[in-house]
Amino acid sequence: MQLPKQILIVGLGLLGGSYAEALTAKGYEVSAIAHRQSSIDYATKKGLIKSGTTEVDKDFVSQFDLVVFALYPHILVEWLEQYHTYLKNGAILTDVTGVKRAIIPSVKEIIKDDPVEFVFAHPMAGREVYGVENATSEIFKKANFIVTPTPDNKEDSVQMIELLGNEIGSHHVARLTPEMHDEMIGYVSQLTHVIAVSLMTAKDCDSLYEYTGNSFRDLTRIADINENMWSELFLDNKDELLAQIDLFMGEMAKMREALDKGDVETMKEMMRLSSERRKKFRG
Amino acid sequence: MQLPKQILIVGLGLLGGSYAEALTAKGYEVSAIAHRQSSIDYATKKGLIKSGTTEVDKDFVSQFDLVVFALYPHILVEWLEQYHTYLKNGAILTDVTGVKRAIIPSVKEIIKDDPVEFVFAHPMAGREVYGVENATSEIFKKANFIVTPTPDNKEDSVQMIELLGNEIGSHHVARLTPEMHDEMIGYVSQLTHVIAVSLMTAKDCDSLYEYTGNSFRDLTRIADINENMWSELFLDNKDELLAQIDLFMGEMAKMREALDKGDVETMKEMMRLSSERRKKFRG
Repeated sequence: MQLPKQILIVGLGLLGGSYAEALTAKGYEVSAIAHRQSSIDYATKKGLIKSGTTEVDKDFVSQFDLVVFALYPHILVEWLEQYHTYLKNGAILTDVTGVKRAIIPSVKEIIKDDPVEFVFAHPMAGREVYGVENATSEIFKKANFIVTPTPDNKEDSVQMIELLGNEIGSHHVARLTPEMHDEMIGYVSQLTHVIAVSLMTAKDCDSLYEYTGNSFRDLTRIADINENMWSELFLDNKDELLAQIDLFMGEMAKMREALDKGDVETMKEMMRLSSERRKKFRG
Repeated sequence: MQLPKQILIVGLGLLGGSYAEALTAKGYEVSAIAHRQSSIDYATKKGLIKSGTTEVDKDFVSQFDLVVFALYPHILVEWLEQYHTYLKNGAILTDVTGVKRAIIPSVKEIIKDDPVEFVFAHPMAGREVYGVENATSEIFKKANFIVTPTPDNKEDSVQMIELLGNEIGSHHVARLTPEMHDEMIGYVSQLTHVIAVSLMTAKDCDSLYEYTGNSFRDLTRIADINENMWSELFLDNKDELLAQIDLFMGEMAKMREALDKGDVETMKEMMRLSSERRKKFRG
């Protein structure tokens, strides 16, 4: 199996630009559609893409057998509503969206009569900065690439998107159901961002930062956050994120109560469980 | 100003051993008192110390003008109760303890009639492993060294301990009151450990770890934790740690409520404040 030689990327932000760089480096001919001409100009000048446009033209879009949508969730849905008939017969489509249950039904509904196939995926890569100017294929090196197949997908198509995940240099490519994906993302990614933000907003302590240690730096590294993207992702996964917040706050409350009562045994028990689980993965 | 050529370290764990390595490398003659002969043997073989003993002998202890206590808080107090009369006339004493208000009054009471001076300090260095076998002066390189003078201290003595902080290679040496130290430590160090532990105990998800991203790894790095040391530190700083937990949980609850209500503006406001504060320090 191989990917089509020519690949279209719709959306040239941090992720779209990073896909472009990674795929161009692998010898693919990458084209892009972006909202701003300046993103196209930058990506062309830096050699990330072969060609690009801000116009969504049917003759252009219909050339591609593989299209990667690197858009915010609601923009992906809007784009497809407007242009889905432009897509090539037989094209495989994929995305980078960090939530799955919130977009899959809408996307499916739009393309239900089209001769195209959408294989949903999520490269778990990101940085605290954004825009194509910060794009780099480096972000995939430590990242997991999750494919979330639906019953409509053909095995071949799923494998093609898995191959895409490998071609961009992902650390690990895996499959999850959309439901498992959203639970997992709610826990390991969205909850951690809620925690980092809350830790940062809890206290105005400019003068204390200079005394801080590695632990505070580690826990707040992701507290510098793109508020438009993350508020949308949070709301699109609201039920799971609320559930994960509640699980976490329950444990915080348990530790708080043990501390308040001087219940050393409960405190130590939690610390032992925590240590045991953390030892299972490194880094 | 300079430090005495000969320095005694009481306690040869991770921190005591790291002090020994750093000071020996700087040309000081470091001696140690340890609980276990094996720690002395290791430190002697590795050249961390010049001499060491498991016996607390008056003739030995009374040779030193500078003594660093690298002990758990309650053991520091017990040691002084038993042996404070062995200390040399005019000796300067210091510690590594991560809590201050809980030990300062007890220590002061014990040595109140002795011709010695205790300058309390806290090198904010640590690792998730412990014991002299893991000692390395590397742990000080990114660490802040906090001196917490009390009204009893002479300026010269405080400066000597600041010099000690510099000699071991601390990133930054600063002064705080014991109260400020405990508030700061409650927030940037103890609270972060409570969070990391709670995040790790909240969910049994072995199969999910392989899908995790950098954010979860960052937030749980300190979740592999020495339960004896940390439960003691938590209890010794109980009032401040409870206050910091409450501040943090208040912010978590605020974000949870905003999410539940779909109040995007509050969510974005918290994220903007968080980003603004986080941008002020790097790393």
